[in-house]
This record gives sequence, C-alpha cells and structure tokens, in this order.
Amino acid sequence: MSPDDSTAQPLRSDAERNRGRIIAAARTVFGSDGLGASMASVARETGVGIATLFRHFPAKEDLVAAVFADRMDAYADAVDAALGDSDPWRGFTGYIEAACAMQAADYGFADVLTTTFPTAKALEKRRNEAYQAMLWLIDRAKTAGRLREDFDPADLVLMHMAVAGVVNATGEAAPDAWRRVAAYFIQSFEAPARGSLPASPEHDALYRAMLRANSTGDTAPEPSKGS
Amino acid sequence: MSPDDSTAQPLRSDAERNRGRIIAAARTVFGSDGLGASMASVARETGVGIATLFRHFPAKEDLVAAVFADRMDAYADAVDAALGDSDPWRGFTGYIEAACAMQAADYGFADVLTTTFPTAKALEKRRNEAYQAMLWLIDRAKTAGRLREDFDPADLVLMHMAVAGVVNATGEAAPDAWRRVAAYFIQSFEAPARGSLPASPEHDALYRAMLRANSTGDTAPEPSKGS
Repeated sequence: MSPDDSTAQPLRSDAERNRGRIIAAARTVFGSDGLGASMASVARETGVGIATLFRHFPAKEDLVAAVFADRMDAYADAVDAALGDSDPWRGFTGYIEAACAMQAADYGFADVLTTTFPTAKALEKRRNEAYQAMLWLIDRAKTAGRLREDFDPADLVLMHMAVAGVVNATGEAAPDAWRRVAAYFIQSFEAPARGSLPASPEHDALYRAMLRANSTGDTAPEPSKGS
Repeated sequence: MSPDDSTAQPLRSDAERNRGRIIAAARTVFGSDGLGASMASVARETGVGIATLFRHFPAKEDLVAAVFADRMDAYADAVDAALGDSDPWRGFTGYIEAACAMQAADYGFADVLTTTFPTAKALEKRRNEAYQAMLWLIDRAKTAGRLREDFDPADLVLMHMAVAGVVNATGEAAPDAWRRVAAYFIQSFEAPARGSLPASPEHDALYRAMLRANSTGDTAPEPSKGS
C-alpha cells in the first residue's frame, strides 16, 4: 500500500494484481510439484510471460519466500505451541506430528523444511528463530529424561527428509502412511535409548545437503524421478 | 548365444553390442538419476537414436528389468543370507542394513525396491520370491520375541521410501546419513513395542502407491524437485 491509501480500499495496480496472482499460482505449483518446479511452470500457471515473472521475483528464492511466509509463520507457531506445553515430551512429540502434517499437506513446504535459501533473508530469519526454539524444545525433553541423550537436532532434519520420501512416494494412494513412520520415529527417539547410533552427519555436511536440495531443484534432474 | 556358437567366442552382432551398450548406459543413468530418467536420456548417454533404443526395449520396464536383474539377484541373496543367520533378530536387522546399503549405493535400485512393474515378469518374479522370504524372516523374528508383534511387512516398504528420501536429499554431502535413520528404525521395530501405531496402509493402497511411483516416473514432474 502507498502512504496515501490509509482511508480507502486502494485500487491495486496491474503490477500488484500480477504479483498476487503469481504468488497464488506458485503456491499451487510448489504445493503439488515441490520447490523443484521451474519458474517457467509458475509463469505458465499464472498466465504471464517469464519476463514478467522475473521482474516481480528476480530469483526463485524471492518467490519461495513470498509463497511460504505464512507457512513459515504457522510452523514457528507450532514450535511455540510445543514450547508452551507443560509436558516437555508431549510438547516435543506434538511438534513432530504438527510439523510432519504440514509437510504432508504441502510438498513445497516439505522442501522448505529441508532446504536452505541463504539469500532469502526473511525466510531464513524465521527459520532460524524456529530452529532456536526447537533447540530449546529438545533440551527441555532431554532434561525431563524423556528424550534420549544422544538425540541430535540434525535428527529432526533427517526425519523430515525421511517423511518427505514417504509422502512423495505414497501420495494420494496412501496419504496417511507418513503417520505410522512418524510414530516409529517418536518411539525410537524416546528415552532410554535402546542401542547406540551411527554418528549423525556433521553440521556442515548437513548444511551442504540442504543447500544441495535447493541448488539442484531448478536445474538438475531429480535423483529418483525426473523430466 | 545362438545354438551353433558353443565352441567359439561368438562374434557379437551390432545389435548385440548395442544392447549391451544400452544396458551399461542405462545403469549409469538410472544409478544417478533414478528410474525417472527418460528413455531419451538413456539414448543420449548410449549415443544411439531413440528408435534404436525402443527397438531393443519396447517399454522402459523391459530396460529396467535388464539393468536390475543382477541387483535383484543380489537383493534376493541378501534376504537368503538373513534367513540363514541362526539368530532371527540379527538376520532381520542384517537384512535391513544390507538392503538399505544397496539402496543408498544406487538410486535406480532404490526405486526398484519401492516401485512395482507389473509387466516386467522376470523382475517381479524375483521380487515376489524375495518378498516371500522376507515374510518368513519377519515371522521368525516375531516368534523369537525380538520383533514387535504389530510390525507389518508394509513397514519395510515405508522404511525404504523413507531411506530413499534421506539418500536423495543428502546425496554426496552426507552419504552415510541414512545409516543413522536405519538404526532409528531398527530400534523402533524391536520388541516390546513402546506404544501403539497408526494403522499401516492397506495392501491395495500401498500397491497403488508403488504403481504410482512407476507410472509417474517417466512423465509427471517429481513432487519434490523436477524439470
């Protein structure tokens, strides 16, 4: 909105209308195809030329940030709700169920959870805040003796990658299959640990994996399916 | 080989040479891109025309069957080795580690484990034999009281889908991350169960999901990344 439209509903310009239409179309495209969907397919879905699309969003990350700002808010809210639960373990498992449900409902958001976008500052800021809150959630569940001591924050990223594999593979054919997988994860996270675990990936390695998920998205063939 | 070449190394015809080259190229392409790789990309990698490729392999399933015949044998051998272990639980967990390792080493084979190819008869026959042996492996581990009673054979398919998600997302950046995920699964499968589980997907639903993984491979955009 411009500074002078505080009293009346503003007439939106063509540019503003286009921007809204692009975001809505991108939400549909990312939601069904994931973040790997090309800018060209977003332009097609919107019914605008690719030049128009790039004028509004110079990089795909800008578009991703605009599309998922509200999802990221909902995600951060879920983490806050989990921290608000008086039972640390119920809070922790509630977070897992809520986050996986968001992931299952939206392929694009599933990618947001396991991909990093260094130049999408606002999105990364929200994600980092949520991550800090999640570390607190993990600490609290460990202190209460309910979460195994060797649980690593990276395990949540791995779990989301795993759930994405199930959601992508089962799709509409078995849309609730991920719930059973999430339940298995929760039971294996519960203290006391039933056995030792191979080391979790180094922070830098996992970060590279998350960058990789981003950078391969628009250009490289998908490892398991493709063009 | 033709009936008359039993004493001498046969001179292979161009057609036979081409067939061998196509299989080798397809192994490379499927191994890095998964079964979703297009027939066109296999033709490019081989350096033959698409018409030549389709003359040798009228359907992608035929090519998949030719490429993965030996992997499927190795997989069936791993199941047999697991059944040969005198300790039912060690056999069961050894199977999981071996099968996931095969999956991590070869994106294409990962897809074979979670996709069904109704018209690739020989491949499906081997897979069904391995499946029957796996049912025996599960039964044995339950009878020994080491595998939770509510474990469902479908859980192995879900686990492979989950591990595929981790392998695809981490790739070379964190190539051993799947091992930690497999260990979590094994610990959650161990008896006694730590809690109840949501119902596993119906057999028919999971079969549809496996068909879906096949049919979307060559034509539809990948849910999480894409063209």
